[in-house]
Parts: sequence; C-alpha cells; structure tokens
Amino acid sequence: MSEGPGRADPAAMKQALHVYVDAFNAQDAERIIALFAPDAWIEDPVGSPPKRGRDEIAAFYRASVQRVRRIELAAPVRGSHGDAAAMAFVVHLDYGGRPCEIAVIDVMRFDRRGRVTSMQAYWGREDLRFCA
Amino acid sequence: MSEGPGRADPAAMKQALHVYVDAFNAQDAERIIALFAPDAWIEDPVGSPPKRGRDEIAAFYRASVQRVRRIELAAPVRGSHGDAAAMAFVVHLDYGGRPCEIAVIDVMRFDRRGRVTSMQAYWGREDLRFCA
Repeated sequence: MSEGPGRADPAAMKQALHVYVDAFNAQDAERIIALFAPDAWIEDPVGSPPKRGRDEIAAFYRASVQRVRRIELAAPVRGSHGDAAAMAFVVHLDYGGRPCEIAVIDVMRFDRRGRVTSMQAYWGREDLRFCA
Repeated sequence: MSEGPGRADPAAMKQALHVYVDAFNAQDAERIIALFAPDAWIEDPVGSPPKRGRDEIAAFYRASVQRVRRIELAAPVRGSHGDAAAMAFVVHLDYGGRPCEIAVIDVMRFDRRGRVTSMQAYWGREDLRFCA
C-alpha cells in the first residue's frame, strides 16, 4: 500500500475489501479491525448512528463475526477514480437458530496509506430474507 | 412517493433505481433526468469533478444514453435505513465500434419527495473490460 501523497493504490483498496470478506468468513474480527484507521467511522446500516473510532469499531466487529456465518460477494468488487471502493454481497447469518440473509452494498473510503477511514453499509428492512 | 416529512418511501427509492436502469435501456434520457431534484449533483466516476444542477445533469445523460447499449443489474437493488439506495450493475457500451463493459456500483440519495439529490458511481479503470 502506498505511503506517498495522494490516494492509496486502487488495487490495494479493492484487496482490502477482499480481506474484509475473507476475515469475516474466518471469524477473524482482529483482522477486520486492523483494516481501519484509528479515527475511522462506520454506518451500518446507512441511516443509523455512526460508530466512531477504534473502540466502537472493534466492539461492532467482535459482535458481528459471532452472528455472521458467511459473506458471499454478489459481483466483483468495484473501485473508483478516488479514494473509495465498493462491493455488493450477501450476508448469511443465524436468526434464532435459523439461517437468514441480508443483501448489502458496502462503500469504503481509504486514507493514502490504504487504511479504511469510513464504511457505509446500504441495506434496508426489505433486503432481509428469512430473518423474521 | 411520499410528500410528508422525513424520508421517501424505501420501496419508492428502490423503484427509482429500476426506472433509471429501464430508462437507460430505452435510451430515454428525459425519463432519467426527471428522476433528479433541480439542485441534484452527480459524481461519475467517484473521484471526478461533480456535475451540478439540472442543466449539467441533463447534458450528461443525453450524451450517456447515446453511448450505453444496455445496463444489466448484477444483483438486486439495496435500500437503507435512511435516504439512500444502491445497486451493482454492468454497463455495456460501444468503444470504437466494439463492445466493452464497465462494472459499477451506484449510490443514490433522495429527498423526501423521492427525487434523487445525488448519484455517485463507483468504478475505476480496473473495472473496464474490453474498453481499450
């Protein structure tokens, strides 16, 4: 990942999203947390109060990996001409002992060192399947 | 679409994204332009200078529908718990008489009347196929 001025390498930004998915699938919360800059924030779902900073983000992912069984990309990761990358995926999780799914699009922004500075997860109640 | 306070109806926001795709596939620029609020802005691709207001947006889409052969959703449209919806798709277009593709994720935000206030298109040079 670039340490120079400007934005991180586009391939490195996309790779970070793949690491995010792989780490979820390995239930490795610490590997997910390590992707984020110390002052990062996350909004999951978009429209909910953001979680800010390493402690709130760590708590979120340590709880999330316990609930998520598997994340499955729905299409190849997209980049940008700026500091962002995005991906569409399906989260498979347990809901009261039964499998359910959430269809999501994540947008992540990066600092020039390739660390995630924000993650916004687009999903609504209508994007849940078998979760009620 | 809701005229009341707060956000537009989540189903209406998703429906607007379907209208956007269908209108592109009908080469109907005016129908796309009509989805936007007068003071909307678009950033396509993310990292490029935004186009602002009805005139710039209209010029962008009138040119775009000439180049785009077809838009194909890559996965179902996602909503949010806020004023946004997002979709992953592939744009099929002509590049010097040959077909090429761009893999894109669009994020759109809406006013409470269900009009698009911003569109951000996530795609990078690495998301082009057969376009060079």
